Amino acid sequence: MSAAMKTFLDCIPCFLKQALDACRMAGDDEQMHARVLRKVLHEACRLSFDRSPPEMGTRIHRIIRKETGNPDPYLEVKQHFNGFILGLLPGLRKRVEAAADPFETAVRLAIAGNIIDFALADVLSEEFVSETIEDTLVRPLSINHLESLRAAVDSASSILYLADNAGEIALDKLLLERLPRGKTTLVVRGSPVINDATRDDAAAVGIGDLAEVMDNGTDVPGTILDRCPEEFRKVFSEADLVISKGQGNYETLSGEQREIFHLFKAKCPVISRDVGCDVGQVVVLRRKNARTMPA
Amino acid sequence: MSAAMKTFLDCIPCFLKQALDACRMAGDDEQMHARVLRKVLHEACRLSFDRSPPEMGTRIHRIIRKETGNPDPYLEVKQHFNGFILGLLPGLRKRVEAAADPFETAVRLAIAGNIIDFALADVLSEEFVSETIEDTLVRPLSINHLESLRAAVDSASSILYLADNAGEIALDKLLLERLPRGKTTLVVRGSPVINDATRDDAAAVGIGDLAEVMDNGTDVPGTILDRCPEEFRKVFSEADLVISKGQGNYETLSGEQREIFHLFKAKCPVISRDVGCDVGQVVVLRRKNARTMPA
Repeated sequence: MSAAMKTFLDCIPCFLKQALDACRMAGDDEQMHARVLRKVLHEACRLSFDRSPPEMGTRIHRIIRKETGNPDPYLEVKQHFNGFILGLLPGLRKRVEAAADPFETAVRLAIAGNIIDFALADVLSEEFVSETIEDTLVRPLSINHLESLRAAVDSASSILYLADNAGEIALDKLLLERLPRGKTTLVVRGSPVINDATRDDAAAVGIGDLAEVMDNGTDVPGTILDRCPEEFRKVFSEADLVISKGQGNYETLSGEQREIFHLFKAKCPVISRDVGCDVGQVVVLRRKNARTMPA
Repeated sequence: MSAAMKTFLDCIPCFLKQALDACRMAGDDEQMHARVLRKVLHEACRLSFDRSPPEMGTRIHRIIRKETGNPDPYLEVKQHFNGFILGLLPGLRKRVEAAADPFETAVRLAIAGNIIDFALADVLSEEFVSETIEDTLVRPLSINHLESLRAAVDSASSILYLADNAGEIALDKLLLERLPRGKTTLVVRGSPVINDATRDDAAAVGIGDLAEVMDNGTDVPGTILDRCPEEFRKVFSEADLVISKGQGNYETLSGEQREIFHLFKAKCPVISRDVGCDVGQVVVLRRKNARTMPA
């Protein structure tokens, strides 16, 4: 059974472009850039296209961390966007409280934060993030399972919330504030990869008693269950409700048998085709796969 | 001495994208697409970045021809654009004759034809080609060595004209008509590669007595002198004037010591940076390198 979206041929040129953007972000040394690109090419040669795109993302960013000697090249942008979003939060929280449907507004803001993704962009301005927030508040949901999500939240006694990026995790707080207290576990990555949120980011944005914070034990920019610790897999399978943020979590979990609500901005043509929407659209997707997957 | 533009790191993701576009154009079989991409990845691993981009282009298109079993996947688009441009030629010739400066207008139209390049585009509409022709007639020349070219044409007793693409070669006729009869040799590729012009295309557009037609004996989408037959290298070194069309010829010849006039549309960021202009600009560049190249 495939439990993940496979890598499409279109992903391959994009991986190389991402690797080039990422190593340039990590430093100016062109010899290093060439070494990284050569190593990524060798990894791409070995890659099985049956694996999900974050599998390759994991390998690319291990190469970059090793070749730059920098264990966390995105530390500065993570801290920057955590701070930037924290500054917006009081104003946005007022808009949630004043909204006709505060839950929907909180969901939309949590999804808006998903634009803060350095896997696909090597430059991201505060202005663009602010524009995306405003756009996401009013844009029709391309896939709209919001009412199912609302009902699932109301009836759940345990909720697992899989975070995606730093910065975004500050906006997640607005949705966590709408989930039942004492029942929610927030999951971050086990160690730095791209600008994905780790325990440090959860601490930086002050999750407090909104959720118990857990990490998935890996440096995968997504959730590859086989690599996660037993403790995490247990929580994942036993939770009444799993809310998954972002493309990386979707790509790695989209084939899972258990029901998952995927919340993300569709940011690339491959994933847009997979879920059946246009690039740039906003997705609230309830997905549960049959025990036997179609080929 | 390097006699060519080297491959930049940015070229690598682009090569893979080009390979994917090209094999999809050559057929629908996704297994074939995956085989091509794997082989191109392996070639990219072996590639020396000191070689020019058309070196990799040569290898990519050999792989595609082999894997598809089709010795000329671009035959249809070559024939199509030869025919399309031939249809426009009578009207454009009248505009050359009526122009204040017929030579400049002919140069601009020859450059406009350079947009018919399937190395970078996998789809190209007749409408876009027509728009590019009109735009190129009026756009300021970004690098403007037109007067040097005019003077060189007037004094040359032998001219070598290196053609680039099918379709484009029909527009080259308007410039060939402005060159001295009996002194010009037109060079095409030795065998099919991408939509580059071969002897078949020279015949299809009817070069007639405008120039002697010669081929460079290779399947390189450019001119790698070391690979060309002795006869061609002799003509190349002895010609009073060499006019080179397109990016592929520029990339392979830009480091040569002899003077060359390069005529092309700058179609990618790497080449634009190399010549010092923006993407989309029109270039008439006289280039002659010192005997010792700077590092």
